[in-house]
Amino acid sequence: MKLSKLVGDRFKERPANCLIDSHALMVRGGYIKNVANGIYSQFPPMKRISQKIEAIIRDEMDKLDGQEVLFPVALPASLWDESGRYESVGSELLRFSDRTGSKMVLGMTHEEASVQLIREYANSYAKYPFMIYQIQTKFRDEARPRAGLIRVREFTMKDAYSFHTSQEDLEQYYQKCYDAYNRIFARCGIPEVVVVASDSGMMGGSVSHEYMLLTAAGEDSIAICPECGYSANVEAAPNIIENENTRGVEELTEVDTPNVSTIEDLCEFLKVDPKNTAKAVVYQRNEDDSYVVAFIRGDLDINETKLTNAVGCDIHPGVIEDDSVLTAGFIGPVGINEKVTVLFDTSLKGIDFLVTGANKVDTHYTGFNVERDCPGVEYLDLAKITEGGICPCCGKPAITISRGIEVGNIFQLGTKYSKTMGLTYLDENGKEQNPIMGCYGIGVGRMAASICEVRHDDFGPIWPITIAPWQVHLCCLRSDDAECKAKADEIYEALQKKGIEVIYDDRKARPGAMFADADLLGVPVRVVVSPRNLAEDAVEISTRDKQIDKQKTPVGETIEEVERIIKKLTDDIYSQVK
Amino acid sequence: MKLSKLVGDRFKERPANCLIDSHALMVRGGYIKNVANGIYSQFPPMKRISQKIEAIIRDEMDKLDGQEVLFPVALPASLWDESGRYESVGSELLRFSDRTGSKMVLGMTHEEASVQLIREYANSYAKYPFMIYQIQTKFRDEARPRAGLIRVREFTMKDAYSFHTSQEDLEQYYQKCYDAYNRIFARCGIPEVVVVASDSGMMGGSVSHEYMLLTAAGEDSIAICPECGYSANVEAAPNIIENENTRGVEELTEVDTPNVSTIEDLCEFLKVDPKNTAKAVVYQRNEDDSYVVAFIRGDLDINETKLTNAVGCDIHPGVIEDDSVLTAGFIGPVGINEKVTVLFDTSLKGIDFLVTGANKVDTHYTGFNVERDCPGVEYLDLAKITEGGICPCCGKPAITISRGIEVGNIFQLGTKYSKTMGLTYLDENGKEQNPIMGCYGIGVGRMAASICEVRHDDFGPIWPITIAPWQVHLCCLRSDDAECKAKADEIYEALQKKGIEVIYDDRKARPGAMFADADLLGVPVRVVVSPRNLAEDAVEISTRDKQIDKQKTPVGETIEEVERIIKKLTDDIYSQVK
Repeated sequence: MKLSKLVGDRFKERPANCLIDSHALMVRGGYIKNVANGIYSQFPPMKRISQKIEAIIRDEMDKLDGQEVLFPVALPASLWDESGRYESVGSELLRFSDRTGSKMVLGMTHEEASVQLIREYANSYAKYPFMIYQIQTKFRDEARPRAGLIRVREFTMKDAYSFHTSQEDLEQYYQKCYDAYNRIFARCGIPEVVVVASDSGMMGGSVSHEYMLLTAAGEDSIAICPECGYSANVEAAPNIIENENTRGVEELTEVDTPNVSTIEDLCEFLKVDPKNTAKAVVYQRNEDDSYVVAFIRGDLDINETKLTNAVGCDIHPGVIEDDSVLTAGFIGPVGINEKVTVLFDTSLKGIDFLVTGANKVDTHYTGFNVERDCPGVEYLDLAKITEGGICPCCGKPAITISRGIEVGNIFQLGTKYSKTMGLTYLDENGKEQNPIMGCYGIGVGRMAASICEVRHDDFGPIWPITIAPWQVHLCCLRSDDAECKAKADEIYEALQKKGIEVIYDDRKARPGAMFADADLLGVPVRVVVSPRNLAEDAVEISTRDKQIDKQKTPVGETIEEVERIIKKLTDDIYSQVK
Repeated sequence: MKLSKLVGDRFKERPANCLIDSHALMVRGGYIKNVANGIYSQFPPMKRISQKIEAIIRDEMDKLDGQEVLFPVALPASLWDESGRYESVGSELLRFSDRTGSKMVLGMTHEEASVQLIREYANSYAKYPFMIYQIQTKFRDEARPRAGLIRVREFTMKDAYSFHTSQEDLEQYYQKCYDAYNRIFARCGIPEVVVVASDSGMMGGSVSHEYMLLTAAGEDSIAICPECGYSANVEAAPNIIENENTRGVEELTEVDTPNVSTIEDLCEFLKVDPKNTAKAVVYQRNEDDSYVVAFIRGDLDINETKLTNAVGCDIHPGVIEDDSVLTAGFIGPVGINEKVTVLFDTSLKGIDFLVTGANKVDTHYTGFNVERDCPGVEYLDLAKITEGGICPCCGKPAITISRGIEVGNIFQLGTKYSKTMGLTYLDENGKEQNPIMGCYGIGVGRMAASICEVRHDDFGPIWPITIAPWQVHLCCLRSDDAECKAKADEIYEALQKKGIEVIYDDRKARPGAMFADADLLGVPVRVVVSPRNLAEDAVEISTRDKQIDKQKTPVGETIEEVERIIKKLTDDIYSQVK
């Protein structure tokens, strides 16, 4: 491919709307173009990267005896009705009607479609286990698409579905998939991806894991214990609290707290520690706006995922109107309106003395004691785990919180879909059973963007050779010099003959512009042909990662040297694959 | 791949809802499964066929210097507003709103998206010509999906867009693409595809061609002149009429025709030839249901595409209510309500004496003469060309009409999209210009189904080896016989080591069931291992097309013989590629 014909612009200025580096570089480098909020077209370099990532994924899925299929993008609502998700999933599921008025959805995940495909086929135990997968466009109507390809509305995803006749068989297969995912990330050049326990969310099922690429630009928070190696998404990490009483039991006493409605003001006003307050956090159910109030120790925060799971439906931060059943700023468990759902976080357990609202304007209670004043309470884990928190695995107060991008996820789904959708098989005794499912996803575009996020410098991406759009970037520094041009053309032809993927810059451009473009394309091996080097019968070879920098190589050895470097770069990546 | 693990059912009974053979065989063979009206999932064999077709298309596109990109499936309505097609395209364009209420469409073609992608890039003449293409899911909300994958709502399509600075350059590139398409079809095993002139429809532009696979199951009609080789979709074929007068001029006379409202009854009642009648055909505009009446010689039929083009907007067959401005069965040009748009087909030109309606119940006119009674009329070509019609190329009355499936199309789009969407470049003189575009489409699934339609027997598809899901179907007739199983396993391993794609049937099944499944999978080369043949130290090799039938081959020569046959089958196909 000649760079002069490559469709797409490269430019120097960082676009103002790009908050993270990978987004900026992929726009500046002519990889993607925004079409609508969270929707992009891909220029050839991005398409090439996607195809390489897809080929690696496909290879690993095939090695797991996966069979590639294709599900539709547009699905009938009736299919999602079968699983109950047409109702239960929020507005990220894009619902629409076709010309006949039939209700449809755009597929954001394909559990229902996978069950529908094999429902008649998989009728006997002898046909299990099996796994089907697809690499296909998905649409998720995100409320806040952002960060380029990291969080979009339309994306290409590999999604796989496995079917089993026993939990043990699922677990064995799940482990194989778990390992295959690690291989995929290593083959794509990011062996540092960590696996964390995760919340299963709308997918159902119990056990699930996320593959996290740690980077400050990530939007997920991960709790990691350096002591024992425990790791989990903070959404899924149990928050363990050991309270010690710093004040004794007192009577429940109403106190005037004029205009004191925040925890900070309250602690200052009453001279109490935030750990001696029971803070009210108000949410509303999406379905009917009814109130859910979670009480939590004043120094901690609610984790919305945990709260959603506890409530059992989608919720949003509450808005308290003047005529509400709640008294904003003064909400407490004692005497709260009985229409409100009240939950207690485990962080309140065992504290003798608490300050909390009295459900009256400008009034709080002191001496609140959960067990005495609200007998029979069930404590739930609703709080976010924090830096220095107790590790749920080894028990040491060693938790650190890191940011990460989720680049893959795997779920043990259980029988949620097979039961609701009537997928059954006859077991060896002729008895009807519901198969157990697993599902396994990787977003292709997000993976590319994440790799860019952790493999770039100020000048552009540093693509791992296994997914780079090309292997070699050939620059002819003086295409107006006949000898230089002839030699560069010759090298271009020779490299192509060897099956090496070359992008060839034979433009009449300044060297600076050429190198800036080469940096933005991030191709691993660079070969520069110039009259000055040719005078010494040499070309200059560099690698994008600067491990090799302007290495003078005799012209006649160019091809062999390039082959050697490509092999070395590839071997380096494969040495990380377990 | 072992057949025992292949996901999907194969069965004997022809499904009742399958009107054409390819549809029935692709359901029966476990290729596709219906998910909703005109929407299918693909089982592994279909996915494999698609991938092979896609690889052939990709190769030919790359040879034309095409650059693969990816456009979104979900597009903002604003983009289609720019070209005017958000309004002008009918309800096959699926329109919906996202969660914020923004209007969107599902991409059924991507002219707008292609212009949007390269609008900033393609700003100088030096960047032209170039071509970009994608292979992606499309959605077209067809009113009547039918015939399996032949006419669906969701489909995978290769669509390519080329951009040029002159009509000559477009024409040169168009010719290359024209040839590449012929190569694609030949490589896929259907060299007999014919190219016909076509109507450009909603795409805009003037010159366009369709690639037609002739088969009785096709839904397109193609006019072919065996004398000169002319071929065109009947929608695009001019209908040439040479009238001779069999009756002289008479006065316009109102006659009672009680209850005589069809052309047949009228001709019988008044003893006139249908060629002496001016038949009224009633349509309504989709936008406001206003009437359009086309008058045409009584023995001919209106071509709706020609009529749509003449009217300039979408139309549908008219429904005449009791209180209508039209008198059903008695409509004529003289005295027709002036709210009605009246058009005359060229077939009425030069006929002295015509019978036509008098716009009164039970009444017709005789002696109607267009030139005299409706002076200043403009004749339009609105009629379908018929068998035996005059060839518009050589003038001989030799036209034959065949049925065909459109498997590809190419269009010279002109500047329709570049002008409306503000795509410009500076020419060599620094003057702003709109580039000229071409576009080129092939539906992958329709291609597979069409090939099945013309390459099958009563038992299943006969896939050309270049697109077959596997190259070899290996049957172990007695997997309970240790020696037979061991030998078949050995052949399976050896074939795979040679890089040959094998589907291996090692089930404990009756030979009849095995062969029926093999026929349904349509794999080109079949190798049967059985104790009886092994006793003679042989295997039996057949080809699905029966050119080789149960050829006994020494076991030790199996691999070489299979390789030889695969090469022969491949060479046979490539010998047809020009």
